[in-house]
Amino acid sequence: MNAATTEVSKADIATRYQRVRSFSLQIAEPLSPEDCAMQTMPDVSPTRWHLAHTTWFFEAFILGQSEDYQCFDAAFEHLFNSYYNSIGEQFPRHRRGTLSRPSLPETLDYRSHVDEAMQKLLGSACDAELLRVLELGLQHEQQHQELMLTDIKHVLYSNPLLPAYDISAKPDSAETPEREWWHCEAQLADVGHAADTFCFDNELPRHRTYLQEHSIASTCVTNGEYLKFIDAGGYQEPTHWLSLGWVTVQQENWQSPLYWRLEDDNWFEFTLGGLRPLNPNLPVTHISFFEADAYARWAGLRLPTEFEWEYWSGRQATMPSDCFADQLLQGKDCIHPRVGRTSLLGNTWQWTASPYLAYPGYTAPNGALGEYNGKFMCNQFVLRGGSCATSSDHIRKTYRNFFPPDARWQFTGIRLAR
Amino acid sequence: MNAATTEVSKADIATRYQRVRSFSLQIAEPLSPEDCAMQTMPDVSPTRWHLAHTTWFFEAFILGQSEDYQCFDAAFEHLFNSYYNSIGEQFPRHRRGTLSRPSLPETLDYRSHVDEAMQKLLGSACDAELLRVLELGLQHEQQHQELMLTDIKHVLYSNPLLPAYDISAKPDSAETPEREWWHCEAQLADVGHAADTFCFDNELPRHRTYLQEHSIASTCVTNGEYLKFIDAGGYQEPTHWLSLGWVTVQQENWQSPLYWRLEDDNWFEFTLGGLRPLNPNLPVTHISFFEADAYARWAGLRLPTEFEWEYWSGRQATMPSDCFADQLLQGKDCIHPRVGRTSLLGNTWQWTASPYLAYPGYTAPNGALGEYNGKFMCNQFVLRGGSCATSSDHIRKTYRNFFPPDARWQFTGIRLAR
Amino acid sequence: MNAATTEVSKADIATRYQRVRSFSLQIAEPLSPEDCAMQTMPDVSPTRWHLAHTTWFFEAFILGQSEDYQCFDAAFEHLFNSYYNSIGEQFPRHRRGTLSRPSLPETLDYRSHVDEAMQKLLGSACDAELLRVLELGLQHEQQHQELMLTDIKHVLYSNPLLPAYDISAKPDSAETPEREWWHCEAQLADVGHAADTFCFDNELPRHRTYLQEHSIASTCVTNGEYLKFIDAGGYQEPTHWLSLGWVTVQQENWQSPLYWRLEDDNWFEFTLGGLRPLNPNLPVTHISFFEADAYARWAGLRLPTEFEWEYWSGRQATMPSDCFADQLLQGKDCIHPRVGRTSLLGNTWQWTASPYLAYPGYTAPNGALGEYNGKFMCNQFVLRGGSCATSSDHIRKTYRNFFPPDARWQFTGIRLAR
Amino acid sequence: MNAATTEVSKADIATRYQRVRSFSLQIAEPLSPEDCAMQTMPDVSPTRWHLAHTTWFFEAFILGQSEDYQCFDAAFEHLFNSYYNSIGEQFPRHRRGTLSRPSLPETLDYRSHVDEAMQKLLGSACDAELLRVLELGLQHEQQHQELMLTDIKHVLYSNPLLPAYDISAKPDSAETPEREWWHCEAQLADVGHAADTFCFDNELPRHRTYLQEHSIASTCVTNGEYLKFIDAGGYQEPTHWLSLGWVTVQQENWQSPLYWRLEDDNWFEFTLGGLRPLNPNLPVTHISFFEADAYARWAGLRLPTEFEWEYWSGRQATMPSDCFADQLLQGKDCIHPRVGRTSLLGNTWQWTASPYLAYPGYTAPNGALGEYNGKFMCNQFVLRGGSCATSSDHIRKTYRNFFPPDARWQFTGIRLAR
Repeated sequence: MNAATTEVSKADIATRYQRVRSFSLQIAEPLSPEDCAMQTMPDVSPTRWHLAHTTWFFEAFILGQSEDYQCFDAAFEHLFNSYYNSIGEQFPRHRRGTLSRPSLPETLDYRSHVDEAMQKLLGSACDAELLRVLELGLQHEQQHQELMLTDIKHVLYSNPLLPAYDISAKPDSAETPEREWWHCEAQLADVGHAADTFCFDNELPRHRTYLQEHSIASTCVTNGEYLKFIDAGGYQEPTHWLSLGWVTVQQENWQSPLYWRLEDDNWFEFTLGGLRPLNPNLPVTHISFFEADAYARWAGLRLPTEFEWEYWSGRQATMPSDCFADQLLQGKDCIHPRVGRTSLLGNTWQWTASPYLAYPGYTAPNGALGEYNGKFMCNQFVLRGGSCATSSDHIRKTYRNFFPPDARWQFTGIRLAR
Repeated sequence: MNAATTEVSKADIATRYQRVRSFSLQIAEPLSPEDCAMQTMPDVSPTRWHLAHTTWFFEAFILGQSEDYQCFDAAFEHLFNSYYNSIGEQFPRHRRGTLSRPSLPETLDYRSHVDEAMQKLLGSACDAELLRVLELGLQHEQQHQELMLTDIKHVLYSNPLLPAYDISAKPDSAETPEREWWHCEAQLADVGHAADTFCFDNELPRHRTYLQEHSIASTCVTNGEYLKFIDAGGYQEPTHWLSLGWVTVQQENWQSPLYWRLEDDNWFEFTLGGLRPLNPNLPVTHISFFEADAYARWAGLRLPTEFEWEYWSGRQATMPSDCFADQLLQGKDCIHPRVGRTSLLGNTWQWTASPYLAYPGYTAPNGALGEYNGKFMCNQFVLRGGSCATSSDHIRKTYRNFFPPDARWQFTGIRLAR
Repeated sequence: MNAATTEVSKADIATRYQRVRSFSLQIAEPLSPEDCAMQTMPDVSPTRWHLAHTTWFFEAFILGQSEDYQCFDAAFEHLFNSYYNSIGEQFPRHRRGTLSRPSLPETLDYRSHVDEAMQKLLGSACDAELLRVLELGLQHEQQHQELMLTDIKHVLYSNPLLPAYDISAKPDSAETPEREWWHCEAQLADVGHAADTFCFDNELPRHRTYLQEHSIASTCVTNGEYLKFIDAGGYQEPTHWLSLGWVTVQQENWQSPLYWRLEDDNWFEFTLGGLRPLNPNLPVTHISFFEADAYARWAGLRLPTEFEWEYWSGRQATMPSDCFADQLLQGKDCIHPRVGRTSLLGNTWQWTASPYLAYPGYTAPNGALGEYNGKFMCNQFVLRGGSCATSSDHIRKTYRNFFPPDARWQFTGIRLAR
Repeated sequence: MNAATTEVSKADIATRYQRVRSFSLQIAEPLSPEDCAMQTMPDVSPTRWHLAHTTWFFEAFILGQSEDYQCFDAAFEHLFNSYYNSIGEQFPRHRRGTLSRPSLPETLDYRSHVDEAMQKLLGSACDAELLRVLELGLQHEQQHQELMLTDIKHVLYSNPLLPAYDISAKPDSAETPEREWWHCEAQLADVGHAADTFCFDNELPRHRTYLQEHSIASTCVTNGEYLKFIDAGGYQEPTHWLSLGWVTVQQENWQSPLYWRLEDDNWFEFTLGGLRPLNPNLPVTHISFFEADAYARWAGLRLPTEFEWEYWSGRQATMPSDCFADQLLQGKDCIHPRVGRTSLLGNTWQWTASPYLAYPGYTAPNGALGEYNGKFMCNQFVLRGGSCATSSDHIRKTYRNFFPPDARWQFTGIRLAR
């Protein structure tokens, strides 16, 4: 994780801390205590767990270093440690949904307790290292804010009542623009985070790579295009699929993206605004790497590498401001991708063809924070761009998200290359 | 299920309905919405599910027959059907803990809705068949009241914080009386329900059986006695165990009864009043049939058959009034077995050596209620006597409880025979 | 196991030993080394394992007691111990099919080595205890001979080539006789082994029981009758089934008895003589307890208890000589049930309604042989009568076979009662 | 797969065919029919299956195209198809060890039948396409020859008798030379198969890549070095491991490389020549990617990328002739890595840091042969160099082997980089 070396005033820091922290509460606001308690699959964590774990992060990595700090409850170190072996044993991940205590009010008290201590700390002398970890804690919370939204979507969808998260959505009636193909000659390129601002350790070191000649699509694959793959028997034909992907299709009986449902021959898509008729102009989302890869092969194309993607993102000057979680939620709009965006940033994550690997010369930080990213560099694929569930100040052109190739519950889509 | 043919006034019925139904709420009263939502193993159901399912029972088997009745939510038929294939598909049992909706307040509304309709119905003409099913519905709810208490105990124990259900317990400092052995000569005996009062279908027909000469113990095995089995290496020696029992001991790594914990060489027992030092005079509880059977074999004795048990129960005139859930909870006392009881009824269920089978001539009732008991007559063992989590007006000398031989989360203990 | 106290000459014993032991080799004779090595499910053991394990039995319980005996290979104690914890750890049962050594020739050498030592021992002084264990060893080998036949049937059927065991079968064109119902009044009866001859420990003590009034069928259910249950949707209707049975039907996708196949709307049955058109007059076989129980419930009848069965068997004077493995194999006839038998003995095992339990007063023998039967008395059901895969001198009216309710690979059928 | 366009005489082809095919029989020669039948884990196939499947390959892809060819047994298409969905359903891989038929003699007949047809075909007109597929069939058989050796090693080791494959080994008493570090400046490099000779499709297209500045070790990590990692608690410390690797270590209870055993504080290594005291000078082998990666991290180093490896291999002029399966087996020497080799080729495969991916511009061939390589490009890592179980004419500097990161039963070792 890169030190944020630019000068920031203490007031700015405290404000940013307060803003990020309260956004978590805003996400949880429409939810009942029971909604906040559910774990519908091992990958999903209860909302309440997210609220506690992000708080624990500040306790474990900042407040816990100080002798002054009065720990809220010593047992939380075990309960809310996610995967830091250096800190100690973790409560088993797949059992998070079996914990009824601390309750939601107790969890909010825990947050307040830590927030008070943090604000007090920010009011006193803060060294660069503390500011560095503080920023990491906020970025970490923003990652969990995205997970809160995607996890609760899975919780609501798992219930036969199909309840909506309470946002009143504007229907998106835009048309998809014509797809362009942007061409790049083979060349050496420098990739990885360059600026003096925050980034995760996995975005470093900036280094040189060789790009093959290629073209990339200006828009993502739409629901309508993906439906053609389904209608052409895409889920029934093994030759489109990686071998592991085909095994998964069979075992999980996949027939469509995660939240699609066929009722009386009409396709619907479950959104955080409830079940809606499938809009063919919207980008396809909630698909696995396996599906993205199979679609591309069926279409005679391929997925871009992460560096091809980064090259093109670097050439886009402006960043859209209206397709990120913080904007959508404040505008009381449904957290869902929009029609027809050509920006590489926002809307849906885009699967790349690149396995998640260390950059040349990468070394994990010392101590428990060294477990943040590096140890997951195996059997996962890189996603780029951020989504409608990401905060706009949490995304970067060099940001590397990563999930196993069968993961579908994130807002994940397809940008093609050739 | 036997018709209760004795005259009961309508007022009595309405009162009884109200009393049984409100006891469910009393049990749930100390629990948070999150407590009521948890499922810590497939056998455990969330409290909220119990509250809804017992309500569904009246809707499915009584109110649903009437065209006047306005169903609360049609989706609940699927959500809260436990195992009645004749009624339709069931929401998967092991996924009950993934449902956040209906919430606790909505569930209480559902109860009120059904209670109002039921009270209205009880105010009008009720035929004998309706009264029979109504009584079954109340007995059914009383069975679930016991499960609510044992399920929440499992939920609380599964949480590393070990929270107590909120009852302030009186410590039980009584001494265990000397154990007597009551002797019975070989003889023919009639067993099964005889009276004109309610019983479940599995207690019928009353029939003749042949009792072998035997003796039965006047008191149940205590914690102190069971500890000797543990200290003698009982959990390490396969020859004490049934083959399936030994497999279970190995797989589950059993070292003691379910809620015992060894900390710094001292044994503790988790109770609904929290974690307490193990009281050697209390009856051992929360053990499986496998453990009861292994203990008996180690002691050179055996478990009684269900008919031996019923014979002796029939000879005890009085029934204790102070060791059942309804008494304990109203007295604000901890739901836990007491020291030194010699009654065969109450305190802890007692595993018998008898597999759960149909009595000669048994036939299941017609229709969906025929699925209540009969289809479970395989690979389970009969328990007799009721426990501290049973209501006192829910137990009988002919009552047959049944669980698989590895079940441990009920209040189950050991009465020996030879 | 009961001592065989009748006088037997040493020559008789040696002859019997030789005869039983060589019958195992006769069973294995048509099989290739590969056939003898297969384990197609955890319950199936390779033929070669059976040949070695039955030999190990004599080594472990007789020869091993003597200091003179030169053990063939010390490692075999571990490799060929089936389930005797008192003797030591066992090679995992489900991995028996992963052992290529000792090879078939080495295994036959092992048998010869032990046979020579046994014959030498039988030529010297033998005390009653040794003769008792010897007889047990032979009875044990006869049990495994039946398993060899049923296990190899599963092995051959699991291969898409559907090879036949090499016996040339006579087609059985007999007609099923009219079914009679034999009636018995309620009465006390003595059951269990009475004679002075060999029996297993689980047939003792002889004891009194009370029989309810009942009738039993003179013939077993035929393929044609069972086909009506299938055609009536028996495998699709949950109300016919025990709850655990229905779960099994769904999980295993059962649609018919184990070895039935539907090809182009015609039913076939795989036999040790290969695949044959289904003969409706043959008794149905290779069904589970669950299927026997469901069939009986569908037919408005029930299975007999093991003591009802024993009562009626006791009233049949003659024993058929032509429907047991030793007769069939020597006559080079297919090991398969015959049409129309009214004897309770032979042809197919008959599931009873009785769980496998200890008789009143039962105690397991001391030492490792105490693990032979007693520890399996849980979650299994008693079968009576023997089958076409049993040797005729291995069956008795008091013989109790037992299997879990989902076991189907034995020759198991249905005799009804009411 | 690249066409071998150089002129080869028909006689040469027939000779090569005969030589490769007979080497399979030479590998199987010391094995009993039972040895050839075993499958000790899902990844292992029985030797007999390998003998049949490699034969099936010629039938499916060459002979089957001709109307003249008399198929040996039509059922073999299903039985011996490994993973070609385009050809049809496959017999389940994990059940290969349950097939006793065709027997070993029948399988050898099948080989003869196909060999005769192939030799006849080679005697007639052969077009370039046929020669291309023929060469692929021979390379395919050589791949399976390596698997035969590693699979049988697993079979023998899984047996508590620990039998040796029958080779009399020469003890290797050489000393490991001093390790050198070869340095390379950052540069563009061309990688992938360039010559006009056979290669697999996954070695193409040759393309440009950018190498970072790096150094690579001249020798592989030895048993003695790896033992230091073990003695330092390497298998107990999560921070050395990738997250998935640590999960695997816990689940599988790994404490050492696959074939190491600690007996009375002395380490032994199982080899195809039997169990031997661990030689610290030998290269460590039979380790997973997870272990290679953890060792490297512990040592403060890393694994090379596949292109770093290929760069250095390209700079080595000579290829060792004495550390490949064909040499070792003909010399009647143990198939096991040797001490102190500095060649990048032979001895042990070397895990690289590179996930197994398509080269830029890769497209799988049309038809069923398109399933040969491409569909496995997910969640596997590239190994380079060949091993003592590879034939010397089957390895190349551009050859890409691949296995999942937890695979350990191949001859896999560690070459470090920094």
